Amino acid sequence: MDGSLPRTHVIGAGLIGASIGIGLSAEGWPVTIEDADPETQALAHAIGAGRAPEGSAPDLVIVAVPPALAATVVAGALERWADAVVTDVASVKAPIARAAHATGHGDRYVGSHPMAGREISGALAAQGDLFKARPWVLCPNGATAHAVELVSRVPHALQCDLVTMDADAHDAAVARVSHAPQVAASAVAAALGTLGPDDVALAGQGLRDVTRIAASDPRMWADIARLNRHALVATLTHIIDDLEDVRDSDDVGEALTDLIERGRVEVARIPGKHGGAKREWIPVTVIVPDEPGQLLRLLSDVASVGVNVEDITIEHSPRQPVGLTTLHVLPAKADELSRALIAHEWEIAAS
Amino acid sequence: MDGSLPRTHVIGAGLIGASIGIGLSAEGWPVTIEDADPETQALAHAIGAGRAPEGSAPDLVIVAVPPALAATVVAGALERWADAVVTDVASVKAPIARAAHATGHGDRYVGSHPMAGREISGALAAQGDLFKARPWVLCPNGATAHAVELVSRVPHALQCDLVTMDADAHDAAVARVSHAPQVAASAVAAALGTLGPDDVALAGQGLRDVTRIAASDPRMWADIARLNRHALVATLTHIIDDLEDVRDSDDVGEALTDLIERGRVEVARIPGKHGGAKREWIPVTVIVPDEPGQLLRLLSDVASVGVNVEDITIEHSPRQPVGLTTLHVLPAKADELSRALIAHEWEIAAS
Repeated sequence: MDGSLPRTHVIGAGLIGASIGIGLSAEGWPVTIEDADPETQALAHAIGAGRAPEGSAPDLVIVAVPPALAATVVAGALERWADAVVTDVASVKAPIARAAHATGHGDRYVGSHPMAGREISGALAAQGDLFKARPWVLCPNGATAHAVELVSRVPHALQCDLVTMDADAHDAAVARVSHAPQVAASAVAAALGTLGPDDVALAGQGLRDVTRIAASDPRMWADIARLNRHALVATLTHIIDDLEDVRDSDDVGEALTDLIERGRVEVARIPGKHGGAKREWIPVTVIVPDEPGQLLRLLSDVASVGVNVEDITIEHSPRQPVGLTTLHVLPAKADELSRALIAHEWEIAAS
Repeated sequence: MDGSLPRTHVIGAGLIGASIGIGLSAEGWPVTIEDADPETQALAHAIGAGRAPEGSAPDLVIVAVPPALAATVVAGALERWADAVVTDVASVKAPIARAAHATGHGDRYVGSHPMAGREISGALAAQGDLFKARPWVLCPNGATAHAVELVSRVPHALQCDLVTMDADAHDAAVARVSHAPQVAASAVAAALGTLGPDDVALAGQGLRDVTRIAASDPRMWADIARLNRHALVATLTHIIDDLEDVRDSDDVGEALTDLIERGRVEVARIPGKHGGAKREWIPVTVIVPDEPGQLLRLLSDVASVGVNVEDITIEHSPRQPVGLTTLHVLPAKADELSRALIAHEWEIAAS
């Protein structure tokens, strides 16, 4: 193939496999796709995720089966197609790399972990840009330069943010950024079991955020936990030790302050987290006379427009009798708010 | 006062006190407000949170100081104004009720816990509708009917969802829906400390959600943990036991499946959680011929409009060669999407 587009065969037509198939097909790649379930396979063809498998050997095989099956299917693909490069998309990488190398063909295997942003499943939800602008981890672990180059064309075609890591380092990282948070969210949710309905009704947005991923499908997580047990156990021990320090401290307030301060340092390192949801808000900055009642008048005018202010920041100009008040609103509301405030004779500052 | 509006004095002009002052003033209540910090007090007057304190005794005192000070300030208010009814807004209720009863005037005290939806602080962020449509817990615990009636006029005026509970039951509930989730979120965040920047970059929305509240101010939480230590310790023990069961199980997958399933049952009980964010989405239902490629054509047309589909559900009509595909989109996008799809010759189903 060389300069041309690689003949690509996708095994598994769930959300991930079908989305990769749609995305690569849209880029003109010759894609075939198969699934153990005939209905799922037919659906994948219908939605444009790839054609039916044909006789010719693929250049590239993408294994997108459930994590518990990935090692076996990867090993089978390496043995079936003697010239093909094989990758997979499971969220644990070291055990699959070991299985690939055990076949003696590990130099044709490059592990992938595309980190999709959605927690739904099934081919019907598939879309070609599921991975766009999101991290796609490659774990070469002893593969040839040709194999690495070929597999890396997939995240490039899908416009992903390519990250290359060692498989063990990857597994240690996802235990902390993904697998242990899932376990902790479920444990926080399970602790609600002692409460009556009126008590649970006191829940606010904080609890809803912490427990959102606790609604996940347990089947997938059981497989992931088994595959990544070592790193998950180490992370859970870290979390348990911190919770015990708070629980058992003579001064629970001091122990919690220490834990929150350590946690804040880490939260600030999470990409897209510092300033968090503000990234999705648009700032509208208003020049407000530094006089009593002006801020209230501004907020009343905002309220009369019916636009919800997500956050507000205020800056006083050191040498001027005015302040700058920045209202953070949903993108769809920013223009409407600016126009309405101008109609109420407010001056909008250049952003 | 009787039928007239109660003369109300607010002590503490932070976010909560100032917001209550703004909200009650807007309803015509005669409100005075004071703060230990003269600048904060001046600001509270300027933003319409109440007038300066005057000579006459209030009918109602609302204590909105930091939680660690609430018991002392409530007791002081009960002793200073012999005819006033006193409430406070701290998020732990039993210790403050005990301090109120220790003065011998506990029958004039009714604990309040208004559950605001924002995690910011300071008078500048105050707004009169901060508590609107959110739970406001009252803990009468031995107060007179007059005191309960008077304090309950506040959540009614602010259009809150009034909930009456025993103080100990309240404290046990908030340990599980609020205080322990805060500790767990911080512990999950702190466990990221072993990771390098590339590893942390693998974080997805799940981690961001779980750790969002870990960015909270530790000072307030230290006070709350000390005041509610007993219930917090019991909840942390519940969570630690569940995490240890997963960590120490012979089959980590089975143990995690059990925990996730127990957690899912509880998550479904959290109000506003079942269906979660979908409440904020608008369904646009499209009639799609049951033919290969039609769904892809629909999704391509949606993509060409630039509208983000938050969720998608598909229903096949049993006796007709069409299916109903429902696209869930942000409210501001629903009309735009419907018009664009009609322009692309799609038939929109009645909702």
